[in-house]
Amino acid sequence: MTISVAVSGASGYAGGEVLRLLAGHPGVTIGAITAHSNAGSRLGELQPHLHGLADRILEDTTVANLAGHDVVFLALPHGASAEIAAQLPEGTVVIDAGADHRLEDPAAWEKFYGSPHAGTWPYGLPELPGQREALKGAKRIAVPGCYPTSALLALTPGFADHLLEPDDVVIVSASGTSGAGKAAKVNLIGSEVMGSMSPYGVGGGHRHTPEIEQGLSKAAGEKVTVSFTPTLAPMSRGILSTATAKVKPGTTAAQLRLAWIEAYEDEPFVHVLPEGQWPTTKSVLGSNHAAMQVAFDPHAGRVVVTCVIDNLTKGTAGGAVQSMNIALGLPETAGLNLQGVAP
Amino acid sequence: MTISVAVSGASGYAGGEVLRLLAGHPGVTIGAITAHSNAGSRLGELQPHLHGLADRILEDTTVANLAGHDVVFLALPHGASAEIAAQLPEGTVVIDAGADHRLEDPAAWEKFYGSPHAGTWPYGLPELPGQREALKGAKRIAVPGCYPTSALLALTPGFADHLLEPDDVVIVSASGTSGAGKAAKVNLIGSEVMGSMSPYGVGGGHRHTPEIEQGLSKAAGEKVTVSFTPTLAPMSRGILSTATAKVKPGTTAAQLRLAWIEAYEDEPFVHVLPEGQWPTTKSVLGSNHAAMQVAFDPHAGRVVVTCVIDNLTKGTAGGAVQSMNIALGLPETAGLNLQGVAP
Amino acid sequence: MTISVAVSGASGYAGGEVLRLLAGHPGVTIGAITAHSNAGSRLGELQPHLHGLADRILEDTTVANLAGHDVVFLALPHGASAEIAAQLPEGTVVIDAGADHRLEDPAAWEKFYGSPHAGTWPYGLPELPGQREALKGAKRIAVPGCYPTSALLALTPGFADHLLEPDDVVIVSASGTSGAGKAAKVNLIGSEVMGSMSPYGVGGGHRHTPEIEQGLSKAAGEKVTVSFTPTLAPMSRGILSTATAKVKPGTTAAQLRLAWIEAYEDEPFVHVLPEGQWPTTKSVLGSNHAAMQVAFDPHAGRVVVTCVIDNLTKGTAGGAVQSMNIALGLPETAGLNLQGVAP
Amino acid sequence: MTISVAVSGASGYAGGEVLRLLAGHPGVTIGAITAHSNAGSRLGELQPHLHGLADRILEDTTVANLAGHDVVFLALPHGASAEIAAQLPEGTVVIDAGADHRLEDPAAWEKFYGSPHAGTWPYGLPELPGQREALKGAKRIAVPGCYPTSALLALTPGFADHLLEPDDVVIVSASGTSGAGKAAKVNLIGSEVMGSMSPYGVGGGHRHTPEIEQGLSKAAGEKVTVSFTPTLAPMSRGILSTATAKVKPGTTAAQLRLAWIEAYEDEPFVHVLPEGQWPTTKSVLGSNHAAMQVAFDPHAGRVVVTCVIDNLTKGTAGGAVQSMNIALGLPETAGLNLQGVAP
Repeated sequence: MTISVAVSGASGYAGGEVLRLLAGHPGVTIGAITAHSNAGSRLGELQPHLHGLADRILEDTTVANLAGHDVVFLALPHGASAEIAAQLPEGTVVIDAGADHRLEDPAAWEKFYGSPHAGTWPYGLPELPGQREALKGAKRIAVPGCYPTSALLALTPGFADHLLEPDDVVIVSASGTSGAGKAAKVNLIGSEVMGSMSPYGVGGGHRHTPEIEQGLSKAAGEKVTVSFTPTLAPMSRGILSTATAKVKPGTTAAQLRLAWIEAYEDEPFVHVLPEGQWPTTKSVLGSNHAAMQVAFDPHAGRVVVTCVIDNLTKGTAGGAVQSMNIALGLPETAGLNLQGVAP
Repeated sequence: MTISVAVSGASGYAGGEVLRLLAGHPGVTIGAITAHSNAGSRLGELQPHLHGLADRILEDTTVANLAGHDVVFLALPHGASAEIAAQLPEGTVVIDAGADHRLEDPAAWEKFYGSPHAGTWPYGLPELPGQREALKGAKRIAVPGCYPTSALLALTPGFADHLLEPDDVVIVSASGTSGAGKAAKVNLIGSEVMGSMSPYGVGGGHRHTPEIEQGLSKAAGEKVTVSFTPTLAPMSRGILSTATAKVKPGTTAAQLRLAWIEAYEDEPFVHVLPEGQWPTTKSVLGSNHAAMQVAFDPHAGRVVVTCVIDNLTKGTAGGAVQSMNIALGLPETAGLNLQGVAP
Repeated sequence: MTISVAVSGASGYAGGEVLRLLAGHPGVTIGAITAHSNAGSRLGELQPHLHGLADRILEDTTVANLAGHDVVFLALPHGASAEIAAQLPEGTVVIDAGADHRLEDPAAWEKFYGSPHAGTWPYGLPELPGQREALKGAKRIAVPGCYPTSALLALTPGFADHLLEPDDVVIVSASGTSGAGKAAKVNLIGSEVMGSMSPYGVGGGHRHTPEIEQGLSKAAGEKVTVSFTPTLAPMSRGILSTATAKVKPGTTAAQLRLAWIEAYEDEPFVHVLPEGQWPTTKSVLGSNHAAMQVAFDPHAGRVVVTCVIDNLTKGTAGGAVQSMNIALGLPETAGLNLQGVAP
Repeated sequence: MTISVAVSGASGYAGGEVLRLLAGHPGVTIGAITAHSNAGSRLGELQPHLHGLADRILEDTTVANLAGHDVVFLALPHGASAEIAAQLPEGTVVIDAGADHRLEDPAAWEKFYGSPHAGTWPYGLPELPGQREALKGAKRIAVPGCYPTSALLALTPGFADHLLEPDDVVIVSASGTSGAGKAAKVNLIGSEVMGSMSPYGVGGGHRHTPEIEQGLSKAAGEKVTVSFTPTLAPMSRGILSTATAKVKPGTTAAQLRLAWIEAYEDEPFVHVLPEGQWPTTKSVLGSNHAAMQVAFDPHAGRVVVTCVIDNLTKGTAGGAVQSMNIALGLPETAGLNLQGVAP
């Protein structure tokens, strides 16, 4: 018996990626595919890479169209998903790729998103301590943001093992432009972004900052403060996060390395690279894998972790499918047995 | 019972792509993975995107290491594959991603490759008329070149239906740089190729020219002459071929369109796009799909077919796996149920 | 005494490039800089690369603001420039980077542009036979389209010397995305165009087709028919045109090469490369230079000329400034002594 | 009377960029152009973008060929420049684009470069406090490294005004691939780098670390410790440095902003952007300009400065020419009146 799934927001990048993965998932049947302004269109027009679903017609994103499936994926602007989710049956597994249910602190939510807090759902990053258990049987799942996925994977082992100082974390991330969505904006057109790097949201203003702090603070058991700077890189997909923290006095390089290796040695999707090998975003393109390198800089007293993911796969849709698998008791890697697409 | 396969040339782009596809193929077990100068290395070092095979060690490319498998993929420089293939057991399915066994005309072979002709094998492009049948049960298969794959898919329907003049075909193709291989050459480094288009082998000198003419001539039943110009585009993967021929007097746009639609309507991997939609290489990236548009230019009296493939997938490794599936009687799409990776 | 110039359309790519070049022109003073919806903005906001003009404020594009300068550059949508030009003083040198005054045939204009023909101006491509003379003292100049610039430079020498057949010209051009303008369209955003090649306007529909035919027909002294296919390449700037025509019987490779060399040997901006060297768009980036290679394919009976320009410089703003220099009797290379920016 | 200059290392990227700028410099005559293994070649073959110098023949890089010019530019591997420089006449202005004479601390030199220290020359970054004076009349000039140029421009104003804590500086830089030189290495080929971000030299190992610390420590008047992580971005040119330091208690956003504005308000090439505008590497491409934004993150107690340069221009050859101008008493902007090339 296969599981029926509905996907909303199917004309955007997150929704398209969910469909790409589900089209190769052995245990699911894709039911309603919905959109907002593009309802009525043929999917092949809007997502021409989804050859296997090209003739499907987009339906309206309504509760009526989404209900009646075992699983509903929401890939909607923040605000929109909370509204729809509240009307879906309690027994439906609802997986929200948006931000609405990630933050636990209503004040942080309101400060960064400017609307009332819609409540907190289990967080879809099973590689965090205890998180896999929390997802088993869950009916509501908040998929992490793409930057937080890379940042939390990068630094959690050190905080969980109490090797890092909590008050001076610096994270600089470079993201492919798909992270900015499928939006017709002049600053995103190819002529502007090709051959160009640029920062944005510098100075603590990016909405993913409180989400990163929330995750690291949980791991550390104390309040962690983060300086986070996102930058836009001339590529469609991928995130490289350079995450660095001061190490506690007396910590050795070997201790640091061991913490990361032990944290991830049984993980199917997270890889600590052999010493001397640097991660590349291309090595994870289109896959649910994360790869990282852990370097200790004794001169600066810092650990520097460089971590790569595909923002749309492990950073969004892959994490969503992985979480669904866990929630439903399917093999965790079902539908995600994809290598990176390189070169 | 699964089929055991060996892959040679595993440190290069073609070999890496064969492995990427086989790693997701439900019916095969990957046996020996071999290389030449990189024998002894861990695959994860050389192909860091193949996370599922990262700990495999490359063996030497020898007959001894390759023999004993049901299927052997050869992704070797031309000349090398003929030599090894000749020593493999007759019952082994040998699939050559190189050029050695594609051309039927020894003179053409010698003119373009400068070495003795090694014989001709069944041609691994099942979408050509009669070709699927020819591959069933085959023990030796010559995978087409990447440019010929796109060019033959683009123009064969018109020639097979005798709608096109044979003496004035012009094909201009733009290829991603992976087509030039994983070679340390200054003219291929990123600083040189990013942001730049350039032609090469102009004037009929490219080795794929006789292969294109061979395929089109077979379809037409008469000698077809081609002017072929390859260009290098600033992208890693993908081929866009713009293929144009004069139409025979009296041919209509509707006739032309119908010829292409009928030729491919039952094909799982070849798609004639709805009118008004242009193909993009991104829509087939990492997939075994080809997409094309057929346009009639009555002013110039020409049909212009624009066809996209991924040079490494449908143009090399995907075509190889598809051919293997046919040869062995497996479902033709086994291991190839991959959508394009976009954006 | 310097020449005062006004530049309209300054928030777009063509207008920005005119300003970039004029900012380094020793003989001009930049007066009014105008725009439409962006009037009132600081130029540094819209064109942050024009550091030397960052504090200039954009004025409205009106006749009043433009008149009173020695030279007015129009970088406006087609239709708009004809309207303004008609109201500017006869003694003002008006240089139109748009299409309004390029075509001589009103029927071709109306077929491709759908509006009444506004008359024909001297054509700003001084490398065409007799064209430099025609520009001397001109008060109205129509800057060629970017594709026609590359196509006409590529094939004119062969037609002018009557070496080519007029009825079977095929041109396939790859253009950087800036050719599509600074427009907020989803199909132009970086996530869509990076790593992707795609055609458009296939089948004779592109507006530059009649302009190319007009130029080649003039050179040949007979009607030349062209099949023209534009494609979009993943780069911001640059055009590579692959232009091919059948050669007349008996024509030799040496004759062909000589025709091109003689046509351009005294030209400061057009270069026939030594045999064996292929042109790259990067080699002309940001410069007013064109580079080309001429190859004879005896098998197909065709000459294949591959020609590169920067679509915004030689293909638009550089050609405009070069034409202005000629019209005013300044040194032709004034302000254009720029090498390509490579790598 | 013009100044005669010789350029060594002319087949590489740094040497090519020096030539590109000198070809447009009104006060110099380009004498010997030299190379090592490429001596005897036509420059047009190796640097096809230098159209104005295409027919020049490369000479051997010898003291005899370089001596006899007023100015000699050395764009050689480290070690090589010190050796040649020692043999050039004392009265010749020698400008070393390499690393040999940048560091003051022999121990730091030997640790990072592994060879004997060749002495320290005036540092060619005139925007640093007091540095413009130090360059006037200088006969030997060490051009800064590309990363240090961006990092020092980014943070010096804050350290010079004693607003920043010295013991916790984190700098993450993204560089175009030309920073890695014109080297035939597999990890640099376009297929590998396009669409991919990757770090390297993480953990304090990059040779530019001591150079950055040297400059910041001088400005601060105390020892500054830096964690520096370089990353490779999929573009040919450009550096974006994200540089962050803890601010001293009580420092306000207004104080911070003022420090930067005052430091650079009279500088022709360094620009603090208006609030709300982010720098892009494209805005400085091919130019000698630097642009930056200064943001205060009160939550993390950090200033975050994002600074862009073109690594080959302001970061290498432009800085070299600017320094030459100062040393010789020419206008500082001579030959450098170039806007960025965008889009």
